[in-house]
Amino acid sequence: MAIGEALARLETVVKDRLAAGDGGTSYVASLAAKGRGKIAQKLGEEATETVIAALTEDDAALTGEAADLVFHLTILLADRGLGWDAVAAELARRHGISGHAEKASRPQ
Amino acid sequence: MAIGEALARLETVVKDRLAAGDGGTSYVASLAAKGRGKIAQKLGEEATETVIAALTEDDAALTGEAADLVFHLTILLADRGLGWDAVAAELARRHGISGHAEKASRPQ
Amino acid sequence: MAIGEALARLETVVKDRLAAGDGGTSYVASLAAKGRGKIAQKLGEEATETVIAALTEDDAALTGEAADLVFHLTILLADRGLGWDAVAAELARRHGISGHAEKASRPQ
Amino acid sequence: MAIGEALARLETVVKDRLAAGDGGTSYVASLAAKGRGKIAQKLGEEATETVIAALTEDDAALTGEAADLVFHLTILLADRGLGWDAVAAELARRHGISGHAEKASRPQ
Repeated sequence: MAIGEALARLETVVKDRLAAGDGGTSYVASLAAKGRGKIAQKLGEEATETVIAALTEDDAALTGEAADLVFHLTILLADRGLGWDAVAAELARRHGISGHAEKASRPQ
Repeated sequence: MAIGEALARLETVVKDRLAAGDGGTSYVASLAAKGRGKIAQKLGEEATETVIAALTEDDAALTGEAADLVFHLTILLADRGLGWDAVAAELARRHGISGHAEKASRPQ
Repeated sequence: MAIGEALARLETVVKDRLAAGDGGTSYVASLAAKGRGKIAQKLGEEATETVIAALTEDDAALTGEAADLVFHLTILLADRGLGWDAVAAELARRHGISGHAEKASRPQ
Repeated sequence: MAIGEALARLETVVKDRLAAGDGGTSYVASLAAKGRGKIAQKLGEEATETVIAALTEDDAALTGEAADLVFHLTILLADRGLGWDAVAAELARRHGISGHAEKASRPQ
C-alpha cells in the first residue's frame, strides 16, 4: 500500500472514531476525550521518540516511531477539523512540487 | 494534489538533494551536511511548533507547521535510507487498514 | 557558584528584563514580546537539543544545553509570574527531600 | 526550602539510586536500567507537558511539570556523571551573573 492510500484510510478511520465519540472503546476517541492538549502531548512524545530512534535505534524502530508520529498528527489535525489534503496543498506550495519545476528551495 | 503524490514528489526531491550533496545551495543538503543530529533537532523543533499551533493558532498556522514537520520527517527518513513506503506498510500493519476490516485499535 | 545562587541571580535578571520590557535591547524582553508561545517554543527546542546532546555529544555540550533549557524555563516561569521557589516546594513535596527521610519514590 | 538545597538533595538522592542500581525498587534506577535513550525520552515528554501547561493550564500544573522536567534533567545529567554544579558554572559564564555586572545578554 502506498503512503497516500494509507493516510487516506487512516484519516477516515480516525474521523469515524472521533465522530463516534466512544471514549471507552477506541484509542482515538479515548485520547480525544481527554482534550486537545493530550493529543498534542502524545504528538510531542512521539516526536521525541522519533528523534531518539533516528540517532540510536534500527530502521524498524525508526519506521515504527515515524508511523506513530504520523498517526498522532492525523488525530491532531482531525480534532481541529483538518486533514491531509490541506497539508498536501501546503507542501506543494512550499516546495514547488505541484508542477514540472520541482524545487526543494524552502522559503524562510 | 493528494497527500500521496505530494509525499512521493517531496521524497524524490529530498533524495535528489541528498545525493547531490551540494551543501551550499539547497536547504536539504545544507541541513544534512550538518549531521543527522541537526535534522533530528529540526524535527523536534517543528513538532514543538505543531503542538503550539494546535493549541493556540489558526488553521493555516497548524497546517503550515504540519507540513514542516512532515517535510523534516521526510529528510530524516531519507538520511537513513528510508522512505514513506516503509511508513505506509507500518501504518497498515498497526491500524488494520490494509484490507476490509478497518480497525483503529492500536496495539501497545 | 552553586546552582541555587545561579538560579536566584538568573531569575532576578530575567524578571528585571521582563519588567523593563525593552524588546529591542535584551534577549529576554525581545523573546517575551513575541508572546508566551514563542518562549514555550524555545523551551521545546532546548529540550530537543538536550536530548540530542545527551545521546550524541560531549559533556560540555550537554552541560551547555542543560543551561539553555534551565534559562528558558526561568523565562517561561517568570512570564507566568512564577519562580524557582514554587518549583523547589514541589520538588520537596514530590521527592520527600524536605526532611530527614529522603525518598526518591515518585508518585504517579 | 530554596531551589539550591532542593536540587542538591535531589541530586544526592538520584546519584544514590543510580549507584544502588536496584532496577526493581526505585523509579530512578528502573528508568536508568532501560538505557539513556529512555531517560532522554522522559525529559522530552516532560518538556512537551511543560509547554502545554504553560499555554493552557494553571499555575500549579505548570509548577508541577517544571518540577518533573528538572527531576528528569537531574537524572539525565547524573547518568552521564554530571551535576548541577557544572550547569551553574555554565549559567554564570553565559549570563554574566557571577559577579557584579549582571547582564542577561545571551551570546548566540
